[in-house]
Amino acid sequence: MSATQNKVRSALDASQPGYSLPGAFYNDEDVFTADIEAIFYKEWLFVGPECEIPNAGDYVTLTVHNAPIIVLRDNEGKIRAFHNSCRHRGSRLCDKSRGHTGRLVCPYHQWTYELTGELVSTRFMGDDFDAEKFPLQPVHVTSVEGLLYICLAETPPDIEKFRDSITPYIRPHDPRRTKIVFESVIEEDANWKLVIENNRECYHCAGNHPELLVSLVEMALPDDARFGDEFRIMEEKGKQWDDLGLPHKPVDGGSEFRCIRLPFREGAVSMTLDGKPASKKLLGDLTEQDLGSVRAFRIPNNWHHFLSEMTIHFRVLPLGPNKTQVRTTWCVHEDAIEGWDYDIEHLSRVWVETNDQDRRLAEENQRGTRSPAYKSGPYSEVSEFMILNFLDWYRGTLEDWLGGPTKRLEAAE
Amino acid sequence: MSATQNKVRSALDASQPGYSLPGAFYNDEDVFTADIEAIFYKEWLFVGPECEIPNAGDYVTLTVHNAPIIVLRDNEGKIRAFHNSCRHRGSRLCDKSRGHTGRLVCPYHQWTYELTGELVSTRFMGDDFDAEKFPLQPVHVTSVEGLLYICLAETPPDIEKFRDSITPYIRPHDPRRTKIVFESVIEEDANWKLVIENNRECYHCAGNHPELLVSLVEMALPDDARFGDEFRIMEEKGKQWDDLGLPHKPVDGGSEFRCIRLPFREGAVSMTLDGKPASKKLLGDLTEQDLGSVRAFRIPNNWHHFLSEMTIHFRVLPLGPNKTQVRTTWCVHEDAIEGWDYDIEHLSRVWVETNDQDRRLAEENQRGTRSPAYKSGPYSEVSEFMILNFLDWYRGTLEDWLGGPTKRLEAAE
Amino acid sequence: MSATQNKVRSALDASQPGYSLPGAFYNDEDVFTADIEAIFYKEWLFVGPECEIPNAGDYVTLTVHNAPIIVLRDNEGKIRAFHNSCRHRGSRLCDKSRGHTGRLVCPYHQWTYELTGELVSTRFMGDDFDAEKFPLQPVHVTSVEGLLYICLAETPPDIEKFRDSITPYIRPHDPRRTKIVFESVIEEDANWKLVIENNRECYHCAGNHPELLVSLVEMALPDDARFGDEFRIMEEKGKQWDDLGLPHKPVDGGSEFRCIRLPFREGAVSMTLDGKPASKKLLGDLTEQDLGSVRAFRIPNNWHHFLSEMTIHFRVLPLGPNKTQVRTTWCVHEDAIEGWDYDIEHLSRVWVETNDQDRRLAEENQRGTRSPAYKSGPYSEVSEFMILNFLDWYRGTLEDWLGGPTKRLEAAE
Repeated sequence: MSATQNKVRSALDASQPGYSLPGAFYNDEDVFTADIEAIFYKEWLFVGPECEIPNAGDYVTLTVHNAPIIVLRDNEGKIRAFHNSCRHRGSRLCDKSRGHTGRLVCPYHQWTYELTGELVSTRFMGDDFDAEKFPLQPVHVTSVEGLLYICLAETPPDIEKFRDSITPYIRPHDPRRTKIVFESVIEEDANWKLVIENNRECYHCAGNHPELLVSLVEMALPDDARFGDEFRIMEEKGKQWDDLGLPHKPVDGGSEFRCIRLPFREGAVSMTLDGKPASKKLLGDLTEQDLGSVRAFRIPNNWHHFLSEMTIHFRVLPLGPNKTQVRTTWCVHEDAIEGWDYDIEHLSRVWVETNDQDRRLAEENQRGTRSPAYKSGPYSEVSEFMILNFLDWYRGTLEDWLGGPTKRLEAAE
Repeated sequence: MSATQNKVRSALDASQPGYSLPGAFYNDEDVFTADIEAIFYKEWLFVGPECEIPNAGDYVTLTVHNAPIIVLRDNEGKIRAFHNSCRHRGSRLCDKSRGHTGRLVCPYHQWTYELTGELVSTRFMGDDFDAEKFPLQPVHVTSVEGLLYICLAETPPDIEKFRDSITPYIRPHDPRRTKIVFESVIEEDANWKLVIENNRECYHCAGNHPELLVSLVEMALPDDARFGDEFRIMEEKGKQWDDLGLPHKPVDGGSEFRCIRLPFREGAVSMTLDGKPASKKLLGDLTEQDLGSVRAFRIPNNWHHFLSEMTIHFRVLPLGPNKTQVRTTWCVHEDAIEGWDYDIEHLSRVWVETNDQDRRLAEENQRGTRSPAYKSGPYSEVSEFMILNFLDWYRGTLEDWLGGPTKRLEAAE
Repeated sequence: MSATQNKVRSALDASQPGYSLPGAFYNDEDVFTADIEAIFYKEWLFVGPECEIPNAGDYVTLTVHNAPIIVLRDNEGKIRAFHNSCRHRGSRLCDKSRGHTGRLVCPYHQWTYELTGELVSTRFMGDDFDAEKFPLQPVHVTSVEGLLYICLAETPPDIEKFRDSITPYIRPHDPRRTKIVFESVIEEDANWKLVIENNRECYHCAGNHPELLVSLVEMALPDDARFGDEFRIMEEKGKQWDDLGLPHKPVDGGSEFRCIRLPFREGAVSMTLDGKPASKKLLGDLTEQDLGSVRAFRIPNNWHHFLSEMTIHFRVLPLGPNKTQVRTTWCVHEDAIEGWDYDIEHLSRVWVETNDQDRRLAEENQRGTRSPAYKSGPYSEVSEFMILNFLDWYRGTLEDWLGGPTKRLEAAE
């Protein structure tokens, strides 16, 4: 067992169910290496909405830790993904975050690839050179009802249960017929798991997210009776959505994913500062404005809101043990007109502010876990159960990577 | 023995008494880890003057390597210190460098602590939750005649000899009845020991500190006959101070601390560019302007000047093997009035310039010790004996941490 | 064998002749350590043109990884080099990149050295102090026909073959009678070997260097028949240069160095945007404008262009596994007059642009080699043979450092 594996195993052995992770999980270089190998190079990762590459030759790029990736639509309309590294001397092929091209031409020596990855042109490589041996290296990619996912593993884990489960929820919002109208990319000085943990509970919302609370109900489950009025709203809305044929009950995705439709506060129909619609044009064939939002989370790196007139997509990528990138994209109907149907500031403000508040919270959390005095503390079972799910999945994944379960301490203190 | 300990032991074995430390002590990550564990997480560290938190609810924060600490005055007027990390998920509680509060409320989920550290309010933690098990973790703290010191060790070393020895020297200056009127926080690209070594000798003063030399005599001991005129000043001043009942002879603090009252150059009464008083209002019940300065140094991280009308406090905190923070605070009588009694620029200029000159010197020293060709060189026994004391203490402390003395090379070359 | 050596050996074992190096060579900290120890602390390194220190007391400084070095001309006119670190406490002596001084005085405590390195003045060091034991530590230095080289090894490798071989090529350009008129220092986020590899082929020129291609012929050898017209130019020019007694055929420097005179494109006589002379004043005793350029490369860190009226010198220094400094100096005849004989913008533009283009290419190359999916790719034998030479030398040097050849994989794929 390598030094990295030993470090991870002893960190796992020191962790307690129901309690926040030991500090090593948020700070240690070896644990970070394990996270990359066991999770980010193995799981399906969200890239962005498919509507970002509507036409043949459109591409987007991203970097998963050290791996530059390009995702594109080929001339047959098929979505493909490749390692963004030339087979000649390894140079990155595309340096832009998105673009359009007929072929992929390496800027270094102009080795040229078809959008299928086939190497079709080199110079000076001699008669013995067999270009067929040097195609771009493919990466698994799939569109789940308009959400692009890639997987860098040789054999990807199954994603069909996720697809089958969430499709009925998001298809009515027809994500493929949207367009990105705003994007934010921020860097947080915090471990990626603190960013995810922050997203997995709304226990912190009341004290930190005034803009979000215009619309958001701090309720995690439809039968959460902690909240009187809001519970009543859920009952009423549930009936309306049943009548419209829109599913809303929580999906059982185990610890892999979660999907649910939840109502907004009375009087609000969208995640805007005034609660009014972000866009006049409803998505897909929807006719009702007040559909709350379908909230979907999938390990390890993404969550989404599907509203009647807008979708918002969040992507988390680890940059280092203490640094994480969060990309957010806001989409409206592809035919919506800026200035008439929607206003960028009105549409984006709530989540721009909320993301910044969450960044600060995650960074302060990080600073505290760095302390030699930091001790794991207890999660609230009622308000933080989704973190517990996330950490169960996380610990199990590292244990599988190590080759089997480690000794677990009983919950103490 | 761990790899870190092996590295430290072999570095100690390579060091020679009377000679500057081998380069590893100024550059190596493992030695830095040892410095933190053996010294900064074990010794009493200067925080700042007590006058920074005069009232109940006042607090200051600092970070000792990775440990965020809060020091406050509780409602009974008692000074307390805690690890600045919430017992829920570890978030830092206070992100400001100083402030005033009735209770400590975690910004993340509003867990709320009394100023005594008691956890008094949470939400959604369930009936079984026992708040008494989750108080803030205390840190040892004491005020030595108005100078705040903390210790992160479970069992702190004795500080009473220091207290007993320096109290007679500084009590006449009554630090508790001062106020901070200026503060500077700088970062130096140098190991913390080079910053301390720089402070422990005035061999470098003549060539580097024109502003400081308006007042400062480059004399380290009262009987230092190297300097003719200045030696005469010491004799004269010593008699005057005896008459005033002000102690001035060097205190025997071993290698732990050092305290002495020394005169300024003829014609100067303060550390200002013109040698004139920094404040018209004298400290405590003092009636004489020309009292030179009480100079106190204490391992590992602080030194001070107590003048008749001003005190200046220096705090050193290591940020990394090659990065150190130096915080300087200037205090005058609590009733002194800006513009009438003192002028910030006049009061602070000499040490702002001197600190910056010392920063440059420490950084150049650092650059040279990084060289593979760097060899330990001989200290001047007459001008650098206080560095020798410091290094004796330093080596002894690391040896204790390692579990006993290491082989020492005889002084060679 | 140390962990570093094991890492280097397994990286060497994984490398294939004819293919780009495995990613570890461009990214790994241990390999970088080996590069420094086996190459940059052992080989002759280019410093700059001797004309930078024409007079007694002139000096230049540079830092080879962690080693600050000073190169100067002493009062006898002899060129000397020393470790730029005081023998007292190690402080760097000179912090400027170049200057003029009568003696070397440490800024810290004014220890003073003659330009011969002899320690001649200290203060307060006591009667027993023997200054003769503390001279500056010398570094090997030589001027190869006006090009300064240093070697940090105790016993430097032989440089006489290089001197003998290139002297006939560059002496007619008389580098000692030039002056530096422009300098650029850039940092590239790429391993130093990617910077060198980029220089060792012009396969990338057509697609990337429009300014350079005004003058440069993408021909690597005089008998390179790939290029019709240009091959004809070479034949014509060769005859003219034979008549002038100027050598031009490629020198056999093995993998240690390379020297050749090559013509420019028809119509161009210099590396300028318009192909016109960079300076009206010809170098040395030259009378012909159109002499192409003598191109000299020497492992591990330098290449040069000697034109009829200008010389350009490139120096590469590694700052980290992914960071490299490139210093370029442009020289003209020492008597040339700015504004009359030459214009800085006209003279420097082509290589300022080309350096920046090469920086971008090396950085993109670096980003690709960082990918876990990066695979070594095949070099073009016709266009990249000089890289193959460089890598043969590089691998051989690391093998010698490890104590003997490692197992080599056969070229595969």
